[in-house]
Amino acid sequence: MTEPITRATCAAHDAADPLAPLRAQFALPEGVNYLDGNSLGVLPAATAARVQQVVTDEWGSGLIRSWNTAGWITLPQRVGDKIGRLVGAKSGELVVADSTSVNLFKVLSAAAQIARADDPARTVIVSERSNFPTDLYIAESVAAQHGMTLELLDIDAIPARLGPDAAVLMLTQVNYRSGRMADMAAVTAQAHAAGALMLWDLAHSAGAVPVDLNGANADFAVGCGYKYLNGGPGAPAFCWVHPRHAERFWQPLSGWMGHAAPFVFEPGYRPAPGIGRFLCGTPPIIGMSALECGVDTLLAAEPLGGMAALRAKSVALSELFIALVRQRLGGSGLTIHTPLDAAQRGSQVSLGVPPDGSIDGYAVMQALIDRGVIGDYRAGDGTAAEPHLLRFGFTPLYTRFVDVFDAIDALADILARASWREARFMHKGAVT
Amino acid sequence: MTEPITRATCAAHDAADPLAPLRAQFALPEGVNYLDGNSLGVLPAATAARVQQVVTDEWGSGLIRSWNTAGWITLPQRVGDKIGRLVGAKSGELVVADSTSVNLFKVLSAAAQIARADDPARTVIVSERSNFPTDLYIAESVAAQHGMTLELLDIDAIPARLGPDAAVLMLTQVNYRSGRMADMAAVTAQAHAAGALMLWDLAHSAGAVPVDLNGANADFAVGCGYKYLNGGPGAPAFCWVHPRHAERFWQPLSGWMGHAAPFVFEPGYRPAPGIGRFLCGTPPIIGMSALECGVDTLLAAEPLGGMAALRAKSVALSELFIALVRQRLGGSGLTIHTPLDAAQRGSQVSLGVPPDGSIDGYAVMQALIDRGVIGDYRAGDGTAAEPHLLRFGFTPLYTRFVDVFDAIDALADILARASWREARFMHKGAVT
Repeated sequence: MTEPITRATCAAHDAADPLAPLRAQFALPEGVNYLDGNSLGVLPAATAARVQQVVTDEWGSGLIRSWNTAGWITLPQRVGDKIGRLVGAKSGELVVADSTSVNLFKVLSAAAQIARADDPARTVIVSERSNFPTDLYIAESVAAQHGMTLELLDIDAIPARLGPDAAVLMLTQVNYRSGRMADMAAVTAQAHAAGALMLWDLAHSAGAVPVDLNGANADFAVGCGYKYLNGGPGAPAFCWVHPRHAERFWQPLSGWMGHAAPFVFEPGYRPAPGIGRFLCGTPPIIGMSALECGVDTLLAAEPLGGMAALRAKSVALSELFIALVRQRLGGSGLTIHTPLDAAQRGSQVSLGVPPDGSIDGYAVMQALIDRGVIGDYRAGDGTAAEPHLLRFGFTPLYTRFVDVFDAIDALADILARASWREARFMHKGAVT
Repeated sequence: MTEPITRATCAAHDAADPLAPLRAQFALPEGVNYLDGNSLGVLPAATAARVQQVVTDEWGSGLIRSWNTAGWITLPQRVGDKIGRLVGAKSGELVVADSTSVNLFKVLSAAAQIARADDPARTVIVSERSNFPTDLYIAESVAAQHGMTLELLDIDAIPARLGPDAAVLMLTQVNYRSGRMADMAAVTAQAHAAGALMLWDLAHSAGAVPVDLNGANADFAVGCGYKYLNGGPGAPAFCWVHPRHAERFWQPLSGWMGHAAPFVFEPGYRPAPGIGRFLCGTPPIIGMSALECGVDTLLAAEPLGGMAALRAKSVALSELFIALVRQRLGGSGLTIHTPLDAAQRGSQVSLGVPPDGSIDGYAVMQALIDRGVIGDYRAGDGTAAEPHLLRFGFTPLYTRFVDVFDAIDALADILARASWREARFMHKGAVT
């Protein structure tokens, strides 16, 4: 794209976009250009009424009877099966429960047990140094409990490290900072070739890019409900385990909902068959019902080509963003910190702040937010290798091509006017 | 009470009850006499609007900004402080997070670490055989991970077992089956005298009876949000730790929200000071906001005497229930399975089904529910020692004296007519 991209061109893309009607599924606030769905997805239009129904009818009127009459007791499996359709899990292989961090503790504990049982010499959990911190913190804990070590490497150094002591390779498929996406099938095959188990965190993948856990022959996965799945703030998360491992471990969070017969009230724990043992406490019905509405917004794309069609639009959005950065922000000093090869990119683009300190990325993002363009800011160490970042997420269900144009337009204007210099005020970081 | 208790007498009690206005805080369904608040509390009238506000305004309009502008990020502490007022915890000592089962895993892991650090010979976790099963399942897991053993005893055999190998005594203060309540201060003192740590599950205590964790000098506690706290189905739970232990252990579920600086995104885990390290993943904002409304219904009793006044009414309700059982059901074969001494009773009464099989307790409870009287049925082994039970919970915030009268009236009528024999149909158990 060498000739200048105009807003009219972008509007024409939107007019021709077969996925454009999916945007009507959301209750988007006026005056907001939301490019932060990688952090917290927007509110589906159906959610408020559904939550009200759960609160008023199912809880308020149905009371305790709703565990059966409203199907509460099978909600983790029902929503799990729906998410499974987005990530290549078969029915009955995936459940919704707890948080991503808690689920990671469960599956990584399982992976550690299985790896050690198969080969006691495998004592190392390998991950990426810039993986999302909660993954690293949980891995630190699991490693200590199992007498293992956690080794953190740059992503490109990982294949060479997968030796005979590697027990588990744990990666987030799309890096939360750079937006770089791993090839799930290829990396899983590398791990398996080295004798290691493969655990994927799909926090920035589920609902964002096509995922095929069974097709990739992965071992374990967890994922987040409140990002691209539009489940709401702190929505329940999910976990998946390949059936070949499903009954080979003790799930340490052995709560009653993961018992083979929870309502028999036996004093001893007997794990439920298969994925059921990943449940722990009583499921959070209100939040899980909201999550179901969010997942339904993605399943609504199935007649239009599903995740493959959404991915094609996501790539088109991020390509447009990158082209506009080059055209409009070429001399700004901002760098593109996300792979230029679309195949290596998730559904976000991160712009690096120049290491010379000439741009205050935090203040620039505040100025953007003040204009209704919501991305987010993630501090790095400020070097060219790990710069401070302006992150922009593209959620193809509701992001339009004109939204991308308008965001760059606002950013170019802010940088030109240096109006961001007035936007320096303190606030706390937001939850990714 | 030797002369027959009439409905008019009960109505007079209600008319004279200073706590009666608290019932207006709830959206109680028509035609339901709900005596199952020990399993799932009823819907507060304020909850639906508050949840709608969180969904529509805070999430829908505020989006990611609401982590700061709507105070989401401090919600676990804010609601925790409110619950703290009900259970004798100081501000900053208690947080809301995850489920009761998950929280029990955290605090029992902490207790096991501390006990072993102080005295490696202490290797036994002691609990009650008829404790709620999820507590036992989690304890089984923690014991195995720490090379400890779990010993389950009848409640009266526990003091003699607290020898030099006892690491932790873990009890639910009010037993879910019998409704028997332990004297928290006395039992804690027994555990400490034997050198063991004391962990209380307040699932059937918080919001039901006065609790003073600091006054009793307890070590750890967890509790449930969806029973007497009226937080809604699967509401988040809470945990508390005495400040003397707060920084003496590694919390195994070391997620990012328990990090000392979660938004600095460091690769290594540094626990937050104090109770903050009990947080793990991103807090479930919708469910936690609903829980806050439930907790507020209890705090509304503070000007009327608070938990002490609620307890006095609870005792009056259960005394009335027991008196009516004696007057109306004396020849039925049903037994009172809950201590007759009110000081040893929580806020429920359980009736035992005769071991001769002459009454089908399950069918009787179904017949009661068909008439709008909702208690629940818990199977035992059918012996006189552990009978099948009809459980009735008395929530003094909304249960009236006439409700108790009407429940016994319906039960007497059902038993007299044997209409329960027609009510045998299959359904699955409900969540306690």
